[in-house]
Formats: sequence, structure tokens, C-alpha cells
Amino acid sequence: MYDKFNFNAISCGGNFADFSRTKERCGILETPHGVVETPAFIFCGTKASVKGVSPQQLMEAQTQIILSNTYHLFSYPGSEYIKKRGGLHKFMGWNGPMLTDSGGFQIFSLGLGSVADEIKGKRSGVSSLLKIDEDGATFRSYWDGSTQILTPEKSMEIQKNLGADFIVAFDECTPFHGDKKYTELSMERSHRWEKRSLGEFICRDDGSQALYGIVHGGVHADLRKHSAEFINDHAFFATAIGGTLGSTKSQMYEVIEMATTHINAARPIHLLGIGGISDIFVGVSLGIDTFDCVHPTRIARHGGALVKRAFRDSPTREHINLKRSEYEHDDNPIELDCDCATCQVFSRAYLHYLLKASELLALHAINIHNIRFMNRLMKEIRNTIKNSGSLKELRTIWC
Amino acid sequence: MYDKFNFNAISCGGNFADFSRTKERCGILETPHGVVETPAFIFCGTKASVKGVSPQQLMEAQTQIILSNTYHLFSYPGSEYIKKRGGLHKFMGWNGPMLTDSGGFQIFSLGLGSVADEIKGKRSGVSSLLKIDEDGATFRSYWDGSTQILTPEKSMEIQKNLGADFIVAFDECTPFHGDKKYTELSMERSHRWEKRSLGEFICRDDGSQALYGIVHGGVHADLRKHSAEFINDHAFFATAIGGTLGSTKSQMYEVIEMATTHINAARPIHLLGIGGISDIFVGVSLGIDTFDCVHPTRIARHGGALVKRAFRDSPTREHINLKRSEYEHDDNPIELDCDCATCQVFSRAYLHYLLKASELLALHAINIHNIRFMNRLMKEIRNTIKNSGSLKELRTIWC
Repeated sequence: MYDKFNFNAISCGGNFADFSRTKERCGILETPHGVVETPAFIFCGTKASVKGVSPQQLMEAQTQIILSNTYHLFSYPGSEYIKKRGGLHKFMGWNGPMLTDSGGFQIFSLGLGSVADEIKGKRSGVSSLLKIDEDGATFRSYWDGSTQILTPEKSMEIQKNLGADFIVAFDECTPFHGDKKYTELSMERSHRWEKRSLGEFICRDDGSQALYGIVHGGVHADLRKHSAEFINDHAFFATAIGGTLGSTKSQMYEVIEMATTHINAARPIHLLGIGGISDIFVGVSLGIDTFDCVHPTRIARHGGALVKRAFRDSPTREHINLKRSEYEHDDNPIELDCDCATCQVFSRAYLHYLLKASELLALHAINIHNIRFMNRLMKEIRNTIKNSGSLKELRTIWC
Repeated sequence: MYDKFNFNAISCGGNFADFSRTKERCGILETPHGVVETPAFIFCGTKASVKGVSPQQLMEAQTQIILSNTYHLFSYPGSEYIKKRGGLHKFMGWNGPMLTDSGGFQIFSLGLGSVADEIKGKRSGVSSLLKIDEDGATFRSYWDGSTQILTPEKSMEIQKNLGADFIVAFDECTPFHGDKKYTELSMERSHRWEKRSLGEFICRDDGSQALYGIVHGGVHADLRKHSAEFINDHAFFATAIGGTLGSTKSQMYEVIEMATTHINAARPIHLLGIGGISDIFVGVSLGIDTFDCVHPTRIARHGGALVKRAFRDSPTREHINLKRSEYEHDDNPIELDCDCATCQVFSRAYLHYLLKASELLALHAINIHNIRFMNRLMKEIRNTIKNSGSLKELRTIWC
């Protein structure tokens, strides 16, 4: 199992022996579709496409790894269909490393209105989640309204059909508003689901995929410790931190530390759904190897371009909104020092104009910048770690 | 005047002396932004952007020349604004040859509902054109509803501000439903407007632009002859065929011939708004050097991909509609022999899926194929002419 996969932390200023779970690290994550240098950012290609950006353009922006969402692809066009097309890599034309999630997050998130709101502690929306029981989750498909059931075994089957390099055990995404008792019961059920996921994974294993376990336990240190130890004790290739991370930034950082303190450091560690720049610096310093989030590609659709501190208009935001009138006469690129395809050619004024004129090219061009921005950020973080530089100093430039 | 421009018909099987206006020809059209090999297709970047496609991608598809629409850019963001940004080339990041039209076509077309319908003889829509008189046209802006006036002098000023290599004299686009008397009066007024355009052009000339005159006269042979001779007699760099071309394909071909028979063959000849594949073959055989049309980029937005005869599902259509269910399980690229970025990576099945899932990447990818398709078509036409091959034979492959 996992013969075609490998993870090695690499020398960080010659101080490899000093590694501990509370320190940043660089790694090499090997997959059948190539290598990922960590820390790395995983871009969301929710429905088997990163919004408007081709695989070629992802490569040009030096993207290492992308993900697709099992829930969406299961709903339409179906995983059997994608298997018949040769799997997700071939279907969407991406030959690099890829991850699919378990589908659980979307069931619980779409079920409760906005998942992102929910796990951050803002209650909203009406559930289209029909039932959770020991077997799995029953829900109404967003695509055609049909009743569907997802179980650990089904999630593994689907993810096998999709064929991503990394796949994720099926779990319940615990909401923030659950009390400790519910959080613990949910965690225990997630553990049973993850164990069933692992069993099913092993039955189907042909060496082409590696499985992530997910650590739960909400905002409770004892539960996080217990959950981390559970995952450590089972033959997952890597570990993801899931469930609610609390309702504030400081609580989020505490919760990440609660988990990383106990997670087996020999395995890659992924932080689910977090992609703010300052959050990434904290995550890296707590030992996170990979991140994913829709943020960079989602804000692009609304005119949001990620910029380093020097190019911002507000100290509190990590991006500029190119729809704003102050960019109407700004002939500079989004970032003066950016090497992305967009910054080589387009000014802020042109992008502002395209947004105002509802021209598709705007979203496309800003997306490419944001993707390249994240890849540059992660590369600078890796270089700083390798050269025993100061992440704190680097952070003052990027945040 | 026109020192930085040049047009030479090049050797066609060594038979240059045999050139006549009713025969296909190859040419080299030199501009301050590079060379256009003719026959060539000019792609529409209506609002200073070819829908969703970057200048880099246009170059990769071997695009030679694009156009933008004066009417749209005049309405928003304004030509003075673009001038301040360094002109249209710099603003939109396209360093190749470029054309702007006079704005007249849109005033008369948007004014009368669908212009394309109107000049093809289908009456529809309600006018937002307020007045035409000797001075120019008064209309309500599509952008903000304000009352605007466009005159020959104003059109020249705007097109100077935009700074395209080729600009076009201001004319009235005669509707099909006008009778011969109206067509003649309109033509005579267009001639006066074009003469004023030329006068204004000469006053403002700094060598960076070259002016097209437009031949009018509707479907009437004597008027087309008269109009061609009028344009020939004035110092336009090149000639465009404008106004209605009739209501049927055969009438269109007759009208093109009426004009090309009399147009000065030493100048490049452009056919306005025609981009069907079979129409291009006829146009080339009648001596047309350049074509423009929204067709290739417009159909892409609706899932329409241009294909040669061998890859079609219907003998009467020049494209396939990838939304159709028959492509759901089609793992071939749009065209097996196409070298475009899309056909290298994406199957018809994937594009069908993207269209069904409303993913932006579909429009983008099909657009790139259609652009490359047109550029390949024009190159094969040029090669066939150069090698004294048979356009009739080539046409059986492409139509």
C-alpha cells in the first residue's frame, strides 16, 4: 500500500533533527502524477474545472496540485461516467497530482445553507440533508432533486472511479453550533466511518491512490487529541484537519495547534478549507503541509485580486477590489513585481474596465493572477524555510 | 500618407501577370504592428477584448489581426480615456495589427433592433436612432441612454484616439428594405461623409493609420459600380464592401462581384461582416483579401464548434453543437487533426459536460478552437493559392 507515494521532510537549513510538530517544515510529496513540494496550496476545480482556467494555464502559473469535489461530480456527471472517460485526470486534461474530497463536507454544508458560514459559527439556511444514521447520509441532490445516499463505502467507490491521487475518508463535518456532547458523538461516528473507508480503500487498492484520514473534535483539545491518535493508529497515508475550527482567528489557530501537536509528523498534514494569506503563515508555522480553499478563485469572480502589502489599499484586506473607481486610471499591473501572464500584459485600469463592461476576460485574467500569487507565496515560504529565514519577516511582505 | 503601410499581391504559382479582379490572390499587408498575410480573417474584439481569450492565446492560435468596435468603445469607456491609456493596442495588450470600424454599422444596426437581421432583409426591432441628417447620426447610447451624435469628423477623431492601424470612413449602413431611390440617396450621402472622413483623416494624419473607404449601392449593379469608382478616385488606402448584400446567398455573391469587378485591385479589399466558411471561399474567389465576422466567437458561447466536413453531424451546418447529447460519450477532440490548445487536451465529452454544468471553461476552450480553425482555414486557402492548387477541391474538405 502507498508504494507509489512517499513523503519526506527535507533539510531546512541543515537543522532537520530539530523538527517538531510545532515547527514549519519543507517536504517532498511524491505521487504517481508527479511531485508536490510542500508547503503547497491546492486549488479548487470543484466541478472538474478550475473556473475558466485551462490545465495549460494552471501549469504556466506553476500550479502543483488541484482538487475536485466528489459531491458535485457524483451528482453530475456521475463517477461511473468519468471512469469510462479514463478517470478525472484524463477527462479534465490535468496530468499533475490531484485530490478529491469525500463528499461529506458538501452534504453537510450545502445541507445547511452556506457550509462555510456554518462551520465558522454563523447559522443560516435550510437543510436539504434528509437523514444521518450509522450507515451514512441521505440527501437531496443539488443537481436534479433526487434522493441520494452517501456511505463510507460509496464514497470510496466514487473516489476510486474518479481516480485522483489523494482521496479522503468519509466523515461528518461537525458544525460549530453542536455542543461538546454532539461533537464527541459525531467524532466517534466519523471515526467508525473513516475506519470503514479505510477497509473499503484497502479492498479496492491497486496502488494508484493514497488515503487521508480526517481529525475531528471541534474546538475541544481532548477530543482533537483523541481523534489525532485514532487517525495515527490507522493506516492512512496522510492526515487532514477537519470540522469546525471555531468562530475567531485566534480560536482557529488554537484548534490547529491542538491537532498538529498530536498528529503523526511522519505523514503529510492537510488543513481543510483555509486559504487566507495570514492563516497560511500561521498554519505553516504549526506544521501544516498543504492547504485548500476556494478563496483565490472565488474572489476573482467578483473582481478581487490578491496583492502583497505594498500594493494594497487597505491594511486589513488581503486583496484589492478592481471594480472600485480608484483603479479606473491606474495603469500599473495588479502587482508591479508579479510574473503572471496577466501582470505581463494587463493594467488595473483595463481589468477595471473589463469588469465594468461585463467582459469574461476579467474573471479569467484575475483568476490567473490569483493562482500565480498563491503559488509564488508558497514557493517563497518554502525557500524561507529551506534557507532558515524568518517566516515572520516574510509575512510582513505578504500580509 | 500610408508610408508605414503597404500591400502587395504575391506570386501565385508564378502567374502574377494573370491577376484580375475576379480571381483569388495572396497578399502581404504591412502595418506598423506587423504583417498580415491575406486572405485573412479579422476576429471581433468588440469591447476591446475577444470574449474570454487573452492576447497571448490569440497569438498561440496564430491570429494575425483583430478589430474593435468604435461604437461600443465610444459609448464606454470613451476614446479619450483609451488615448490616455496609450491607445487600444497598449490598453488591451494586443501588439499585432488591428482595425476599428467607423461606428456607423452599430448605430444603424442597434438602432433597428438586430442589424444583422436588418441588412439581411429581416425587419425587426425599434429604433434608438433618433435622427440622420447631412451632418451625421444622432442616437441614444446603449450604455447610459444619453443622446450622442456621430459625424464623419467625430468618427475620425475617435478612431485616431483609439489608434488602430486600420480605420474606416463613416457611412450609413443602407438597409435592405430601402428602395433603390433611398439606397442611391443614402449612398451619395455616405460618399459625402466618406469624403469628409478622408479630409479629417488627412488633417490628423501622422502616418500611424490607414483609412478604408466603403463601397455602397445595395443590390444594384450600377450603384455598386458608381460607388466603387468613387472610392477608387479618392486617396483611401483600402476598400471595404459595405451595406446590404441582399437576402440570399446567391444574391450576396452577385453583389460582391458587382463591387469587386470595379474596385481598384491595387488596394486591399475587405468584406464587412461575412464569416461563413463557404462564403469565405466564394469571397476569396471573387478577390476579397480580408473578412470579419462575430460568427466564430459568437457560436462558441452557445456550444458551437467549427469543424471540417469530415467531423460534422449535418451536411448543411458548418459547426457542431456540443450541447447535444450525442457528444456525451464522444472521447474524440472537436477535430482529430486540429492542433489548437483545446483539441490537444479536451474531448467533446468533456466540453459537453462543461456546457451542461455551466462551467466558464467551455466557452473559453471552444472559442480558442474556433479561432484556430479560422486561422488554419485561411492559411490553407493561402497555401492553395500560392501553389496554384484548387480552391474548389479545398472547399470540399472545409465546407
